[in-house]
Amino acid sequence: MDNSVLDKLTVETESKIIFLIMDGLGGLQANGKTGTELEEGNIPNLDQLAKDSICGLLDPILPGVTPGSGPAHFALFGYEPMKFNIGRGVLSAAGVEFNLTDRDLAARVNFCTLDDNGNVADRRAGRIATELNEKLCEKIKKNINIPTGYEFFMQPEKEHRAVFVLRGAGLDDALSDTDSQQTGVPPRDPKAMTEEAEKSAVLVKGLLAQIQEILADEHPANMILLRGFAKHRRYPSLYKRFKLRALAIANYPMYRGVSKLVGMELNPVTPDVPTQIDALEQRFDEFDFFFVHVKYTDSRGEDGDFAAKVKVIEEVDALIPRIRKLDPDVFVITGDHSTPAYLKNHSWHPVPVLLNAGTARVDRVEKFDEISCINGGLGRQPSLNLMGLSLGHALKMVKFGA
Amino acid sequence: MDNSVLDKLTVETESKIIFLIMDGLGGLQANGKTGTELEEGNIPNLDQLAKDSICGLLDPILPGVTPGSGPAHFALFGYEPMKFNIGRGVLSAAGVEFNLTDRDLAARVNFCTLDDNGNVADRRAGRIATELNEKLCEKIKKNINIPTGYEFFMQPEKEHRAVFVLRGAGLDDALSDTDSQQTGVPPRDPKAMTEEAEKSAVLVKGLLAQIQEILADEHPANMILLRGFAKHRRYPSLYKRFKLRALAIANYPMYRGVSKLVGMELNPVTPDVPTQIDALEQRFDEFDFFFVHVKYTDSRGEDGDFAAKVKVIEEVDALIPRIRKLDPDVFVITGDHSTPAYLKNHSWHPVPVLLNAGTARVDRVEKFDEISCINGGLGRQPSLNLMGLSLGHALKMVKFGA
Repeated sequence: MDNSVLDKLTVETESKIIFLIMDGLGGLQANGKTGTELEEGNIPNLDQLAKDSICGLLDPILPGVTPGSGPAHFALFGYEPMKFNIGRGVLSAAGVEFNLTDRDLAARVNFCTLDDNGNVADRRAGRIATELNEKLCEKIKKNINIPTGYEFFMQPEKEHRAVFVLRGAGLDDALSDTDSQQTGVPPRDPKAMTEEAEKSAVLVKGLLAQIQEILADEHPANMILLRGFAKHRRYPSLYKRFKLRALAIANYPMYRGVSKLVGMELNPVTPDVPTQIDALEQRFDEFDFFFVHVKYTDSRGEDGDFAAKVKVIEEVDALIPRIRKLDPDVFVITGDHSTPAYLKNHSWHPVPVLLNAGTARVDRVEKFDEISCINGGLGRQPSLNLMGLSLGHALKMVKFGA
Repeated sequence: MDNSVLDKLTVETESKIIFLIMDGLGGLQANGKTGTELEEGNIPNLDQLAKDSICGLLDPILPGVTPGSGPAHFALFGYEPMKFNIGRGVLSAAGVEFNLTDRDLAARVNFCTLDDNGNVADRRAGRIATELNEKLCEKIKKNINIPTGYEFFMQPEKEHRAVFVLRGAGLDDALSDTDSQQTGVPPRDPKAMTEEAEKSAVLVKGLLAQIQEILADEHPANMILLRGFAKHRRYPSLYKRFKLRALAIANYPMYRGVSKLVGMELNPVTPDVPTQIDALEQRFDEFDFFFVHVKYTDSRGEDGDFAAKVKVIEEVDALIPRIRKLDPDVFVITGDHSTPAYLKNHSWHPVPVLLNAGTARVDRVEKFDEISCINGGLGRQPSLNLMGLSLGHALKMVKFGA
């Protein structure tokens, strides 16, 4: 689907749009024994907001397709997720505000634990502390020998995550992941998927052999896994496309990364969701568009902890009155994808959405959950449509055609 | 719509998918005096299954567009019906397991009845018996003179249907049908729609003139009508695209044809629907994907026999417990298109669909019919989305993007 017509219709206005994105919001009935996470939650503020809004369901990519967070967020921001699909390496680099150049090959790093046989025992090295991560990145950088003509960077993210960047001439990103996403097997070698990438494969393999030596005595993080090799590319910004001066209030690197790639200003990292809302309040006059990202709905879903995911939703519910008080012209609540606690993973299920606006044609949905939203006025549509709907309801677009 | 992203995401797994396709399932209220065929049927098993499933409506091609069975089935199998549209001739040839070569021009044959003035009196020659069809095909092949350098085949299908194949160099399928789909007018000449097809038009016209001579004394089948001229082309198989080892349990040639073209194994023809379910049970361990095709919902719809169509649906309903007992990971019931008895023809109305799976987000639909399914969680979507949804719910796809 091509939505580039929006670019030609948008105008700069005073109206304000808030996207509150609860990561992995969509859920699932636990084997028919309960309702979904949203159905089971006590969420009076979200329910009232749904009553006052137009509701529906969003398919992030295509019905049945489970998205990664990168393409799922691109879709929410109005960027065609297949066309703008991007390697995790570039997202991660953007997330730690590492400025990639056109000569850079980036990959996403997981510190991991290898057992005595060299097999992966834990793909996340027990989610080591960020401080240890920082120490290990320093140790690697200090001890590694880089071939002449190249530069090397290891930037820590949170917990077990980091970014690997190799800078030099003629690098290529057609490399396979070394992370097989499995335990009990050794890390894979990076394989060149095209002839052009063969030199890069040899270089990366050599660096990984050194890193394994350097980390040999560490525990639990005695190796790294690489995935999402990617070279930098440029995106048209939200301002260029939709005339939106946009602020990202997101605390996790990967979401800060997507935001940066589409030209948002990044609010400094804050400790939790209430302080994210503080930032929204404090900076509400400065921007037209606000992306507020709540990570923990997804994290608790991936943990398979149904009750904890419900609790995160309830905590966000309690903050809704503060956001409504700001009286944005358009207030959207949805997720980037579903992460049902029952599946412990991202899933393909569509995500409930509500759009609150003085210009919205309010439907009869009375509660904010996956089942009630089926009968909402937005119906079931691709996430990609959300930006156009939001710009429309914010009166930020002129008429198409005469 | 391009769904080729699915091809890159699917993985081979043990999970099993059943598509029970009731041809022409969708119906229509008879002038407001009754409900639809599904609403009027007594179908406790289908209703219970709908309660336990996620439901919706499928548009085979585009809203308002009435499909033939070929493209409607391609869409259900995840093949873009406009891109993979194919002449009926090739479908029919595949259906009788005639192996077309790249030099073959095929067309679908209807034996028909001409009146004394040479006008078509019955486009199906009173649906002659298959035995008479076979006899007439032999008579034609025995008496026809084929130009040097060419070969000619007439393969009987069921009742009044057969396949016409001309083999030779330089044949082209840009020919208009000789079947005007009307009675009271003579058969049309095959017309070349491009310069390249002119030789083929002349050849086919010559053969048809001979066939009219050969059948002159027959009754009621004293001529043939040709439609869907087509040359052979190759399709990527369900295994190549989606890693599905697929079995078609379909008894009518045309559906066997579509199945063969997408690389399904064909179960031997069985006498009726209960024996089709026997085959499903017996071969359930051998495959990942099962296409079970019920023809008679469409046939009774085309007859305009509302009560008989309801009866076919009720007969299928009684077989549902046998299928549920197999405990497939995904069990889909829908039709390829609607054939409302009230219209006596295929129609554009969307088709009710249910998808039963342990991973499905069950909605509040309580009955399996066109009206109840409006409020289902699948919403209204193109039939083309069904395969992706099924692969997703069967956990046969990896995540898209990082």
